[in-house]
Amino acid sequence: MTTEQLITQIRTKKSFLCIGLDVDLNKIPEHLLQTEDPIFEFNKAIIDATHDLCVSYKPNTAFYEAYGIKGWQSLEKTINYINEKYPEIFTIADAKRGDIGNTSSMYARAFFNDLDFDSVTVAPYMGKDSVEPFLAFEDKHTIMLALTSNEGAFDFQMQNDPETSGGKELYKVVLETSKSWKNAHNLMYVVGATKAEYFTEIRKIVPDSFLLVPGVGAQGGSLAEVCKYGMNQNVGLLINSSRGIIYASNGMDFAKKAREEALKLQQEMDEILG
Amino acid sequence: MTTEQLITQIRTKKSFLCIGLDVDLNKIPEHLLQTEDPIFEFNKAIIDATHDLCVSYKPNTAFYEAYGIKGWQSLEKTINYINEKYPEIFTIADAKRGDIGNTSSMYARAFFNDLDFDSVTVAPYMGKDSVEPFLAFEDKHTIMLALTSNEGAFDFQMQNDPETSGGKELYKVVLETSKSWKNAHNLMYVVGATKAEYFTEIRKIVPDSFLLVPGVGAQGGSLAEVCKYGMNQNVGLLINSSRGIIYASNGMDFAKKAREEALKLQQEMDEILG
Repeated sequence: MTTEQLITQIRTKKSFLCIGLDVDLNKIPEHLLQTEDPIFEFNKAIIDATHDLCVSYKPNTAFYEAYGIKGWQSLEKTINYINEKYPEIFTIADAKRGDIGNTSSMYARAFFNDLDFDSVTVAPYMGKDSVEPFLAFEDKHTIMLALTSNEGAFDFQMQNDPETSGGKELYKVVLETSKSWKNAHNLMYVVGATKAEYFTEIRKIVPDSFLLVPGVGAQGGSLAEVCKYGMNQNVGLLINSSRGIIYASNGMDFAKKAREEALKLQQEMDEILG
Repeated sequence: MTTEQLITQIRTKKSFLCIGLDVDLNKIPEHLLQTEDPIFEFNKAIIDATHDLCVSYKPNTAFYEAYGIKGWQSLEKTINYINEKYPEIFTIADAKRGDIGNTSSMYARAFFNDLDFDSVTVAPYMGKDSVEPFLAFEDKHTIMLALTSNEGAFDFQMQNDPETSGGKELYKVVLETSKSWKNAHNLMYVVGATKAEYFTEIRKIVPDSFLLVPGVGAQGGSLAEVCKYGMNQNVGLLINSSRGIIYASNGMDFAKKAREEALKLQQEMDEILG
């Protein structure tokens, strides 16, 4: 999918919502556990109930790998279902991969070719040659961790002790450096919503890039605040919500309740876009 | 496996060799492609031919994920084969995972419980709460990226421009910080062999930890140099070789040739240990 197609979808649906499919068998409705593939059945119901309110789905690979081969099958069925039934949706494999060049090429092949995701999340620690193999895929997008929403973000990403970092935080160095990489136009970045005030600084470095923003809702980030500091003329934001939507209910009405939560966010987005 | 069991195995076998199982269908002997599971058949033959010369096997998950469900099945069969037939072997899932806490818990469960690996490699970018869920598993080991052997290591890990980092490289900050994490005794570190002179600095920070060292052979690192600067009283090193061993031949004699290459390294290690 091209960036332009993503922007068109955002304008059409009046939404820049991404729904995280982090499916835990301990949290889904009990009646689904009797089916042959509870994770896929859960995803299918959530997707059918919300696809017109969001522009993106983001399965987190950890939640599938934890169930071994069966989990990997559920992931494959989920991405195939989205690609066949709702091809306008921007799909994200939240995998946070990154390795030396020939290994990153294998990961890129796994997610872009074998599973046919539109994008994959990657970690920056190993630098340029660990990310460029992903960037080489045209009309596929590589979403690199910049500033995450967890407490551990303070350990390395936000380090700005003059003695150890000279006052420039690692996440800024990561953003700046990555702009010079080959096919950097295929880069997007993960920036956590719990740090809304940082979006001003981030937009100085990457004014035009799309930012994938987790942390709204369950983790306490504010949608309005993020948009205030982070939005650009092409919107430039994908706001992710996982638990707040998919686990809105664990009864028979789980899909209906998920839609209600997604609708609340979509309506808030519609207002902001207006 | 406990660290003591690993050390005992090293002393018994007079080897601290780890063999990387990075299996690419384009590189393995053609006659295996007729079998039902070429990747597993290849691994099985390599393992049977080398298990007495090495102390560890390290499948790189990217090479399995690239083949989808079939690849994941090959990985599962490989780890089960090692655990059943050669339970003394220290197994490493080279996965370089890392995410927020509840997601890292799922990854830990995938590799430590579902697949029953002794260890997994992780990336440090997201900090403490992204790594501690792995460390919580007793007698399992978490091998964190510190200083890697690729060119991209210079992008962030080795940054020591006074203006941006105050002269302290990120990899040192990572090593130092991680020592204070809960269950840090379950930590090992990845340090690339192509930077042998850095081992002196690294040993000042983590004198007792095991270091997993890729980059000997194909990537140009020297075993003798690494041992000179990196070895401690418990050896403290696992030297990985992948391509140099497993692709020594792509004919019918591939396992025999792999053994010959592994034997060369083991003999060099025997001498160093003596």
